[in-house]
Amino acid sequence: MKRRDFINKASVGALVAGSSVLVPGVAHAQAKFKWKMVTAWPKNFPGLGVGANLLAQLINEMSGGRIKVKVYGANELVPAFEVFDAVSKGTAQMGHSGAYYWKGKNEATQFFSSVPFGLTAQEMNAWLYYGGGMELWRELYAPFNLIPLAAGNTGVQMAGWFNREIKTVDDLKGLKMRIPGLGGEVLRRAGGTTVNIPGGELFTSLQSGALDATEWVGPYNDLAFGFYKVAKYYYYPGWHEPGSTLEAIINKQAFNELPADLQSIVTAACKAVNMDMLSDYTARNNQALETLVNKHGVQLKALPDDVLRKLKQLSEEVVLELANKDPMAKKIYTSFNQFRTQVSHWSALSEQAFLKARALV
Amino acid sequence: MKRRDFINKASVGALVAGSSVLVPGVAHAQAKFKWKMVTAWPKNFPGLGVGANLLAQLINEMSGGRIKVKVYGANELVPAFEVFDAVSKGTAQMGHSGAYYWKGKNEATQFFSSVPFGLTAQEMNAWLYYGGGMELWRELYAPFNLIPLAAGNTGVQMAGWFNREIKTVDDLKGLKMRIPGLGGEVLRRAGGTTVNIPGGELFTSLQSGALDATEWVGPYNDLAFGFYKVAKYYYYPGWHEPGSTLEAIINKQAFNELPADLQSIVTAACKAVNMDMLSDYTARNNQALETLVNKHGVQLKALPDDVLRKLKQLSEEVVLELANKDPMAKKIYTSFNQFRTQVSHWSALSEQAFLKARALV
Repeated sequence: MKRRDFINKASVGALVAGSSVLVPGVAHAQAKFKWKMVTAWPKNFPGLGVGANLLAQLINEMSGGRIKVKVYGANELVPAFEVFDAVSKGTAQMGHSGAYYWKGKNEATQFFSSVPFGLTAQEMNAWLYYGGGMELWRELYAPFNLIPLAAGNTGVQMAGWFNREIKTVDDLKGLKMRIPGLGGEVLRRAGGTTVNIPGGELFTSLQSGALDATEWVGPYNDLAFGFYKVAKYYYYPGWHEPGSTLEAIINKQAFNELPADLQSIVTAACKAVNMDMLSDYTARNNQALETLVNKHGVQLKALPDDVLRKLKQLSEEVVLELANKDPMAKKIYTSFNQFRTQVSHWSALSEQAFLKARALV
Repeated sequence: MKRRDFINKASVGALVAGSSVLVPGVAHAQAKFKWKMVTAWPKNFPGLGVGANLLAQLINEMSGGRIKVKVYGANELVPAFEVFDAVSKGTAQMGHSGAYYWKGKNEATQFFSSVPFGLTAQEMNAWLYYGGGMELWRELYAPFNLIPLAAGNTGVQMAGWFNREIKTVDDLKGLKMRIPGLGGEVLRRAGGTTVNIPGGELFTSLQSGALDATEWVGPYNDLAFGFYKVAKYYYYPGWHEPGSTLEAIINKQAFNELPADLQSIVTAACKAVNMDMLSDYTARNNQALETLVNKHGVQLKALPDDVLRKLKQLSEEVVLELANKDPMAKKIYTSFNQFRTQVSHWSALSEQAFLKARALV
């Protein structure tokens, strides 16, 4: 069932109030649209929810009010995990979320957020915009009546908060960790136990010892959460989410009803937010990291190379198994993996080599 | 002298042709603007010129033709190095270029493109959008009647093409290299000789031995140039330009004349292009690198750590001297440098640590 009653095209008469004639052309260009944006985040959530707000704001401003997008936090209109269905059915015209939440629809959605040992934000955007990624994403979402757009990125995340030191691969055995998705599957294969705990209970679970560790996002979001009060070590790097893309999803009919200029506005607004959110995270992660270390005395620890090697080997297995589940997943994996192989070489000579050079003393 | 005759506001009468009434509100929103965009690149130049084209296209599309931006390549309307003055005076309403070209106006402009051992693209955007950078940039350009916006990035560049191997700091002595700007000053202090040669003569100069080395951009642009035919070694990383921002500059009066929705469109279009160009470079650098290595047998070489250490030490001196030239430069340097110190820590734990982990075998 498609409910389209939220799209309210203002009548020409209302726009030219005071005039007794209709103005062809002007009327069409001035059609107005009221859109609902449902999101997978609490309203105004730092980074993610702020990005959704900016997306709505840009569309509202650039369209001069011809599209009015109203943002709904998770559970305000629909629960977080119903964003996909709500936009698919037209309950809302657009949504802001993460593609890996929809693995129940198709496991391959995960390639469009982040997979373990996958792509950094910069690499991911290169794959999406210039490496064939967007075309595959649109193909994957088309049967669901949805148009996907990249609309934000967290950058490389942290490995998480631990109350147990990880010195060897054996230290992962029996580790009780909150780590969802593919990263969780990797940890289970390494001998760990994944625990599914809602965000609101993470703090007390770490405190009580019901959990040994949890991943979350990065310094900016994690500082706000206060994990430093109940966990000893803050491990890096975020091997399981090296650059998570956030998505805007648009109901296909709602998008197609827009005139060309408004379609262009919605599309470019997503690209601008994709840039903006990554910048927000980068700037604030860096500030929050300083606060965590200097003010709260957080102990930063690198996962040892042997542990990372093991996690990487298991990650490759897990992602390949996912790819073999259906032909579309295989097609996406093939493109993603080929791009990753090539771009890894370039990133090593550029980003990685430069950052290493700058750190020389 | 400000020439504003390029801005052509369509009369209300023309817009409501066939109607005998004026429509208040609608008339204002439908005012039309013809803009010229002068650029510092040859028309359609890969990466840079393509980015300028996309910027114009996005503005044209999103505004539904209410702004018509026409792009001029270097020398079509004004020479590359007169873009700043042309937009300042209103000969053109906007320009697309690189801030370091305007060091003759103020040495501090260089902080808004790239400085040796400065910031990567992701860090730069974080500084600009969320670290106070944009506010300083606007302050720096205000006396010139210009509004700057970030509108593209090349990502980390390469150190350049060399016909002489660089094994120690001594190998830089007497090196004849084409490397402009602050990087050139650093090389001179290391004992090298910088040679100012136009792009068109680089190829033959390398061939004849008049030059030992030249920097250019990265694999994508360098492959097209054919440097691999006349130089033995391709060195990395691009310590002198770790993430060069390209700028859009807008004539202040031209911008202020736009209604709010069109101002928002111009601003967001720049942010979208800032994202897009970096993705373009990342994807195509990675493809071009493969071609250079596998098809043309190019020898990739890393600058040795000792050489990088020396270049870094000299770079810090050169950038600090620049900062001490005037109070505005000092103010910008202080913000830039403070941000760099903080973000270096975060980038080491995130981008650098992840890329290193992914490369483990």
